Amino acid sequence: MNTTGKVIRCRAATHWKPGAPLAIEEIEVAPPKAKEVRIKIVATGLCGTEMKMLANPNSHNNYPIILGHEGAGIVESVGEGVSTVKTGDKVITLFLSLFLPQCGECASCLNPGGNFCVQFKQSKTGLMSDGTSRFTCKGKPVYHFGNTSTFSEYTVIKISVTKIDAVAPLEKVCLISCGFSTGYGAAITTAKVTPGSSCAVFGLGGVGLSVIMGCKAAGAARIIGVDVNKDKFEKAKEVGATECINPQDFEKPIQEVLFDMTGAGVEFCFEAIGNPATVAAALASCHESHGVCVIVGLLAAGTQLNISGWLFFSGRSLKGSVFGGWKSRENVSKLVSDYMAKKFNLDPLITHTLNLDKINEAVELMKTGKCIRCVLLL
Amino acid sequence: MNTTGKVIRCRAATHWKPGAPLAIEEIEVAPPKAKEVRIKIVATGLCGTEMKMLANPNSHNNYPIILGHEGAGIVESVGEGVSTVKTGDKVITLFLSLFLPQCGECASCLNPGGNFCVQFKQSKTGLMSDGTSRFTCKGKPVYHFGNTSTFSEYTVIKISVTKIDAVAPLEKVCLISCGFSTGYGAAITTAKVTPGSSCAVFGLGGVGLSVIMGCKAAGAARIIGVDVNKDKFEKAKEVGATECINPQDFEKPIQEVLFDMTGAGVEFCFEAIGNPATVAAALASCHESHGVCVIVGLLAAGTQLNISGWLFFSGRSLKGSVFGGWKSRENVSKLVSDYMAKKFNLDPLITHTLNLDKINEAVELMKTGKCIRCVLLL
Ligand SMILES: NC(=O)c1ccc[n+]([C@@H]2O[C@H](COP(=O)([O-])OP(=O)(O)OC[C@H]3O[C@@H](n4cnc5c(N)ncnc54)[C@H](O)[C@@H]3O)[C@@H](O)[C@H]2O)c1
Ligand SMILES: NC(=O)c1ccc[n+]([C@@H]2O[C@H](COP(=O)([O-])OP(=O)(O)OC[C@H]3O[C@@H](n4cnc5c(N)ncnc54)[C@H](O)[C@@H]3O)[C@@H](O)[C@H]2O)c1
Ligand SMILES: [Zn+2]
Ligand SMILES: [Zn+2]
Ligand SMILES: [Zn+2]
Ligand SMILES: [Zn+2]
Repeated sequence: MNTTGKVIRCRAATHWKPGAPLAIEEIEVAPPKAKEVRIKIVATGLCGTEMKMLANPNSHNNYPIILGHEGAGIVESVGEGVSTVKTGDKVITLFLSLFLPQCGECASCLNPGGNFCVQFKQSKTGLMSDGTSRFTCKGKPVYHFGNTSTFSEYTVIKISVTKIDAVAPLEKVCLISCGFSTGYGAAITTAKVTPGSSCAVFGLGGVGLSVIMGCKAAGAARIIGVDVNKDKFEKAKEVGATECINPQDFEKPIQEVLFDMTGAGVEFCFEAIGNPATVAAALASCHESHGVCVIVGLLAAGTQLNISGWLFFSGRSLKGSVFGGWKSRENVSKLVSDYMAKKFNLDPLITHTLNLDKINEAVELMKTGKCIRCVLLL
Repeated sequence: MNTTGKVIRCRAATHWKPGAPLAIEEIEVAPPKAKEVRIKIVATGLCGTEMKMLANPNSHNNYPIILGHEGAGIVESVGEGVSTVKTGDKVITLFLSLFLPQCGECASCLNPGGNFCVQFKQSKTGLMSDGTSRFTCKGKPVYHFGNTSTFSEYTVIKISVTKIDAVAPLEKVCLISCGFSTGYGAAITTAKVTPGSSCAVFGLGGVGLSVIMGCKAAGAARIIGVDVNKDKFEKAKEVGATECINPQDFEKPIQEVLFDMTGAGVEFCFEAIGNPATVAAALASCHESHGVCVIVGLLAAGTQLNISGWLFFSGRSLKGSVFGGWKSRENVSKLVSDYMAKKFNLDPLITHTLNLDKINEAVELMKTGKCIRCVLLL
């Protein structure tokens, strides 16, 4: 049945208000307008960023909203003026297209060192460019999230979608949409981990494990995983950690433990939690002369970092990284090709696979630290 | 007269207690012990770092002390086991040898990106390795400062001194000992300013002006000087600033002014003041995707930086720089050669030249913002 130009009725996990569980509802998805694409989502991950939104009673989102951003699917139809993808193309839904449309023209896009495209400011409200939503539920408009909203069988996205290899398994490569690329790129693109170096990774969720994979791919000699949940250690070692430690097992601050272990601090340190205290500890864990600390975790809006100025004097660096420093359009399809060429493996990250109906189970698995990534099938 | 092995009586500016003016006194300087060098100081600058020590009633120094670190002189005699310099050599007294002896063996020395040699911890007390001082005044031991103490006709230094070109004018190249190299290197070595880039420099003292020279040498297209003292602007423009602004002339925060001026923030920003508020403003003035902020100013011990975490998310970096990131022994004599080859000019930095007797006048000139560098002749 050709659905082009028609409203599609389908199911979506709708978030009605902060703190509420997700509700599987029937919704209507309007056709894409100019420069928009309607996508049949096939698989989506549940990222730590969503967990933060579900946990935060003061979330800045508008409600009701359809969350989800780590998705992959097939183009159902395209709006006027879309030439980069067509009906039937396999695509990855770039959450970070919100931040990283890669317009190709702004100072960030033109600079080899940055990926934070200035176009990002466009879609903060959860509405499309024309000020309306494409989603309706029970007669009410439902807000978009991050120009993705992948917890829906169909979604509408504007600006950038990336066409990927037609034979890529969507239930795996959906992780390239966010968690994997974010962590892997933080090591390779942002920090530029050097062969033989020492690294530490704070937080061993899907993002932190992907940082470990990046450190390993870059040839790091020593990769120390740090997490308060020791159940994460086995998996961390499987993907490349040479050792793992739990800060709660020590009397002294974790930065002192890492100094004891390494003699002079780690050369590269990553914070993949999103907590100002662990950011400060990660910086202090770095080698004083040339240590580089990368903030990968998302700090809550308004968070102030309180950091001893002296840490910088001797030469340390503190650097942020969004979507692993990758320029989105240029690199996502390339990362999918690298996956197909077996340059890295996504399987260790996917501990659970469930149907969209079971999304609240997936949330619970994440909340209790029992899973790395749960891929939801639609 | 051969003074080798003998105590030398000479004059020095002695600091008896925090807050007191400097007192020109006759002192005794003992001969150098093993791995030490006794130097006849010919010229010394008065750096912002000393100004901070004179102004700070809670200085961590021991008293009485002989300050001064931006010096150049001639080797009078050497202790046992010193092979890198000999009597009669022209040398630069590396203040930063305290921090940066460049042992050549530690992880910092072996890493191309760092210069903070681990050996630095040796001489924090103001005493030599054997736990005694080489200075005596009125029968009392006088403490060394930063392994330099250049406000004295003769001083004793351990570990590293750098032999320089025999025809170099000491009353100019003394600035290579600290202020010039610190600023110039912060731009060239630490930040690696790129051709055509936009830069801002907060603080237009000797260090900040040297940052400007470094930005210019690296080919920056736009160099914006920022200072609360507009008397510094003329000199800043002379050495390469394309424009200068005074934060007090604006209602809005200086980072917003710099965003207005540049459209998207500066690509490289330098803090050459040593104030946590200007460090935060300098970081916020950087381009959000790839802006690099370098802290050159010395923050008082215990200073906490309070910085919005969100500034990092989009990719900004904050980096410390000590002695311009130069590995001390390797680069100082090379910088002197570059000066002799007219690759840069030190004259604009030297606004005053006075005899050591007049050191309190020099302090006053610095305090009132009337001078960039006053070189003292001994
Ligand atoms: N910068 C970006 O582009 C980007 C993209 C995606 C995700 N993120 C962020 O990355 C972070 C990690 O995402 P994830 O999906 O891996 O989340 P996750 O919840 O799966 O993993 C977080 C891990 O941190 C551990 N942890 C929590 N507090 C800790 C502490 N104090 N010390 C040590 N370990 C601690 C938890 O046990 C868990 O294993 C989140 O903040 C997320 O918002 C950022
Ligand atoms: N990191 C290092 O290796 C190193 C080496 C030498 C000096 N330093 C430090 O560099 C800094 C500068 O040294 P200097 O010799 O140029 O000092 P200086 O006192 O000559 O210059 C400081 C300048 O900052 C300006 N200033 C003060 N407060 C300001 C504000 N709020 N906003 C704008 N401008 C302001 C002053 O007007 C002055 O022009 C000092 O903190 C010094 O301790 C660091
Ligand atoms: Zn994510
Ligand atoms: Zn762009
Ligand atoms: Zn100095
Ligand atoms: Zn060393």
